[in-house]
Amino acid sequence: MAHRSFRPTHFHNTFAAHDFGLTLDPGDTVETFTVDAAGRDAAGDLVAKPANPLTGPFAVRGAEPGDAVSVRILELEPNRGHGWSSIRLAPNTLDPDFVAGLTLSDEPRRVDWRIDPAARTVQLEDGVAGLTGFHLPLAPMIGCIGVAPDRGQAISTATSGEHGGNMDYRGIAVGVTLYFPVFVPGALLFFGDGHAVQGAGEMAGTGVETSFDVTFEVGLVRTAGGDGLRWPRGEDDRALFTLGDARPLDQATQHATTEMVAWLMSRHDLSFEGASVLIGQAAEYEIGNMFDPAYTVVCKVPKAVLP
Amino acid sequence: MAHRSFRPTHFHNTFAAHDFGLTLDPGDTVETFTVDAAGRDAAGDLVAKPANPLTGPFAVRGAEPGDAVSVRILELEPNRGHGWSSIRLAPNTLDPDFVAGLTLSDEPRRVDWRIDPAARTVQLEDGVAGLTGFHLPLAPMIGCIGVAPDRGQAISTATSGEHGGNMDYRGIAVGVTLYFPVFVPGALLFFGDGHAVQGAGEMAGTGVETSFDVTFEVGLVRTAGGDGLRWPRGEDDRALFTLGDARPLDQATQHATTEMVAWLMSRHDLSFEGASVLIGQAAEYEIGNMFDPAYTVVCKVPKAVLP
Amino acid sequence: MAHRSFRPTHFHNTFAAHDFGLTLDPGDTVETFTVDAAGRDAAGDLVAKPANPLTGPFAVRGAEPGDAVSVRILELEPNRGHGWSSIRLAPNTLDPDFVAGLTLSDEPRRVDWRIDPAARTVQLEDGVAGLTGFHLPLAPMIGCIGVAPDRGQAISTATSGEHGGNMDYRGIAVGVTLYFPVFVPGALLFFGDGHAVQGAGEMAGTGVETSFDVTFEVGLVRTAGGDGLRWPRGEDDRALFTLGDARPLDQATQHATTEMVAWLMSRHDLSFEGASVLIGQAAEYEIGNMFDPAYTVVCKVPKAVLP
Amino acid sequence: MAHRSFRPTHFHNTFAAHDFGLTLDPGDTVETFTVDAAGRDAAGDLVAKPANPLTGPFAVRGAEPGDAVSVRILELEPNRGHGWSSIRLAPNTLDPDFVAGLTLSDEPRRVDWRIDPAARTVQLEDGVAGLTGFHLPLAPMIGCIGVAPDRGQAISTATSGEHGGNMDYRGIAVGVTLYFPVFVPGALLFFGDGHAVQGAGEMAGTGVETSFDVTFEVGLVRTAGGDGLRWPRGEDDRALFTLGDARPLDQATQHATTEMVAWLMSRHDLSFEGASVLIGQAAEYEIGNMFDPAYTVVCKVPKAVLP
Repeated sequence: MAHRSFRPTHFHNTFAAHDFGLTLDPGDTVETFTVDAAGRDAAGDLVAKPANPLTGPFAVRGAEPGDAVSVRILELEPNRGHGWSSIRLAPNTLDPDFVAGLTLSDEPRRVDWRIDPAARTVQLEDGVAGLTGFHLPLAPMIGCIGVAPDRGQAISTATSGEHGGNMDYRGIAVGVTLYFPVFVPGALLFFGDGHAVQGAGEMAGTGVETSFDVTFEVGLVRTAGGDGLRWPRGEDDRALFTLGDARPLDQATQHATTEMVAWLMSRHDLSFEGASVLIGQAAEYEIGNMFDPAYTVVCKVPKAVLP
Repeated sequence: MAHRSFRPTHFHNTFAAHDFGLTLDPGDTVETFTVDAAGRDAAGDLVAKPANPLTGPFAVRGAEPGDAVSVRILELEPNRGHGWSSIRLAPNTLDPDFVAGLTLSDEPRRVDWRIDPAARTVQLEDGVAGLTGFHLPLAPMIGCIGVAPDRGQAISTATSGEHGGNMDYRGIAVGVTLYFPVFVPGALLFFGDGHAVQGAGEMAGTGVETSFDVTFEVGLVRTAGGDGLRWPRGEDDRALFTLGDARPLDQATQHATTEMVAWLMSRHDLSFEGASVLIGQAAEYEIGNMFDPAYTVVCKVPKAVLP
Repeated sequence: MAHRSFRPTHFHNTFAAHDFGLTLDPGDTVETFTVDAAGRDAAGDLVAKPANPLTGPFAVRGAEPGDAVSVRILELEPNRGHGWSSIRLAPNTLDPDFVAGLTLSDEPRRVDWRIDPAARTVQLEDGVAGLTGFHLPLAPMIGCIGVAPDRGQAISTATSGEHGGNMDYRGIAVGVTLYFPVFVPGALLFFGDGHAVQGAGEMAGTGVETSFDVTFEVGLVRTAGGDGLRWPRGEDDRALFTLGDARPLDQATQHATTEMVAWLMSRHDLSFEGASVLIGQAAEYEIGNMFDPAYTVVCKVPKAVLP
Repeated sequence: MAHRSFRPTHFHNTFAAHDFGLTLDPGDTVETFTVDAAGRDAAGDLVAKPANPLTGPFAVRGAEPGDAVSVRILELEPNRGHGWSSIRLAPNTLDPDFVAGLTLSDEPRRVDWRIDPAARTVQLEDGVAGLTGFHLPLAPMIGCIGVAPDRGQAISTATSGEHGGNMDYRGIAVGVTLYFPVFVPGALLFFGDGHAVQGAGEMAGTGVETSFDVTFEVGLVRTAGGDGLRWPRGEDDRALFTLGDARPLDQATQHATTEMVAWLMSRHDLSFEGASVLIGQAAEYEIGNMFDPAYTVVCKVPKAVLP
């Protein structure tokens, strides 16, 4: 079933077992929208509380703890012509001695960008010396996406974990299918915090923040026993990937790598050694973010090398 | 001047101010070879002491502390038909609880690979269940490359630092130019530990280890004052990149990011904010290795986005 | 006012703005009890859901966001004669290669201890070879203590943060006064997870877990402007201390050190340099825990050296 | 044999297999001196190159790779009346956002201290607002101590590792016996960089730096097979301790804990579980330093609890 024009009226700032308005069947699609990280919508109006207010939750009928839910992103398009970003790399991304010696200019902390959907560009407005006319290809992504967590927790949209959350990985884009572990009946899917473009690692602490029209399709994966996922997984036409969320990057990488080992072992009936050879000689890694309270690291294995 | 067929007879296991046989002028090229990480040459003979014995050092005439030397990799081709790799992901790349629960199979710790230069493939020999016939595209890279360090140190080829070293970054390949800070007169360039292919992060602790024919060109960059580099830098046709070496990955990333900020500020006359916008919205990151005593993280900025 | 024999009937597994039964005035004392980490009470009965069920919350009248509340521990005494602990160091506290090579014995994962309040000892029951009769001095402490967090979060009792939580610091004992930032009206104080004894760092993942009788006194500190605390603070007769909660230990140490700088600057009207001299030449550090999702590091400055 | 008044004339800035002048028999004592971290001696004269110039090496007759050498510190007394320290906490010990916001005063980066051996005090000279007359008890310690490393390395006195080195642990003081693995014949012992007092963690990057008279006794421990030590160990009347050197603190702690497990298992014939119970319920941890390229964490087990 296609749910057209679902218009959220309330936005959450935690991933939790909040009340929900819409229950979806596996295979259903939904057209809706997200507001920007500061709570502003397509008209630029402040309609939600920062930071990172979420659209949702959407319940998936039949999803029970131990299952996984899938979300396929079908459309992700900015619905206004402007965005904003931070103008300074976050202090934790730089050598401490460099930060101590930094003399900050009088430039403002935020800068505006013009989004041109026709030209598929994102262009910096004036105000940064040496970067007049600077523009990048439009590359829409979702910063926050996930489900209600376990243990009755309500987890801030500032951070991420096994439930997903504020992973700020620029690979979460049209054409990707994500898989999340289910912790509560219905799973309760949320998303928000879209970026028109973002560098790997979100080292400045923001992408180009704006509001989006979003269309997605949900699915349900009944997993049996040890086959279940522990961390978010995803795939697109080219690769499988797993997302680990923690500090430091080392632990996030350990989570993503361990999850990929488990996935390869169950999906391709491999031993630990078999999965090790695939990852050791063919894996790719991306830094989702190195800014949020939990960092995100992504382990990818190209489908072309799978047995 | 082209130095053809330089045949090393002694291989070093530290980056240090060792005696050298060949002094190069900037612009000179050298054809030579490397042995594999275990010290075996093209004939499979053990001619050097493991681990990671180095070809070199080569002095660069006129290089003085405070300068930078460049190395352009012109040719990097396996000179034998076989290689080997570890068969297990390193314990530090996995969740500690997963490692504690691991029941290791009786499979051997190393596995052999067949290298086919004509087909441009690297194929796993039998012995890993589920991976019969598994092969990857040949993708030669140099694991160890760098110069003599400062403070009179002799640094093991197991690790890396501001002098370069065992960075195990698969992007160090044909077409790349690297830049190293000079700490001693002549800089003293070394390299070795070539891999026929390697996944990002070298998570299994090895690539497919083999011996190589190598041709490279050296250069000298006289830097004035604060413009000098602190960590290794590199570039190819598509991107600039910087390499940070440390544990944890966080600190390696801080080094690489700070070095890229410094490079962009001096190369393009940008403020910290200008460099921040470029990195924040357009940088890419790669994990060179997460195995060696110092990990390596690479920060890249595509040349297409430079002002 | 003294609230005698407050007997909780419901125990929470998150720090959150849960309903509360008792509102305290600053200066009030309360006598109550805690159950052990597994939810068992003085009689050994399972009365709460693991892990780390909490007694509370207690509201402090007049406490508003921006204030601090204090909790002084007046009594902390095991109320049963037995406890239990893990028998193995946690894998994340050991070198990964050591963990990979570990052959675990058939000994059970938990072991029982006899608590003798008269002799003030905690004695290991039989079952660990070579440790027959092993005993330690009784040293009661509270593993979990804190307040409701900000942003509408409900944070699991598995972890810790600016609100306190599962810090597992063995210095939280009789005679200590703790200070917590207030995030919600009434602050909403919780505690539980007492240990009869525990090594620094809680490297085995538990102390000797048991149930306790607890008496505490609350207070209210109205802080003005920048003087407010960001992380938990504490003091006893001998020292001031601050508690940072994060991974890795480095970040937890940064939090604790920064909080101590802020405290010394405001409490003693010192410059950053003055606070630096005190910490640089006289601070002590303790590892609270290196097991939970967030580690805890404590920075202490002896009162004897304060100006 | 007692070697009285050994007066070094050359000081090294690396731990390496340097030439040595004195070969000691196990049981020999030596009276000598160290210069301060900046290379100044008892008279305040600059006699060595900074940073951390070392007295030694001293060879131990009969020491072979695989053995351990011991060093007992018999005397450690400042031999001049003044010292100096940094005046600011190192940026890596503080929250990055705090460092970014820091407005540094015009106070100088170093401050002088008066050392009074009769009164056993170390008193800050004027110049830090609010700390007039500030003084601490004299607590002499050795910052750098260790042996020549393996693999032909020459390791800077800025850092530390399995060979010891610049560990900056304030517990290395009179009454302590240290044990180091032997990597080269004769072991080749070095030391220097004494502090009149230092806070835990050396968070300001220095202690109160001065020159010292030192008397020590060497010993030789022939270890058989797997009983050998991998990281430095030590003991005094009260406790056994192990020293791990690495970044981040987590890895340093893993090294120290693993070394203590190995020591307890061999010294007391315990299983992993037995060692786990001792460490889990009775260990203490200290941060040696969180400033140098490798941090140092110390794991201690009181002798009173040993079986």
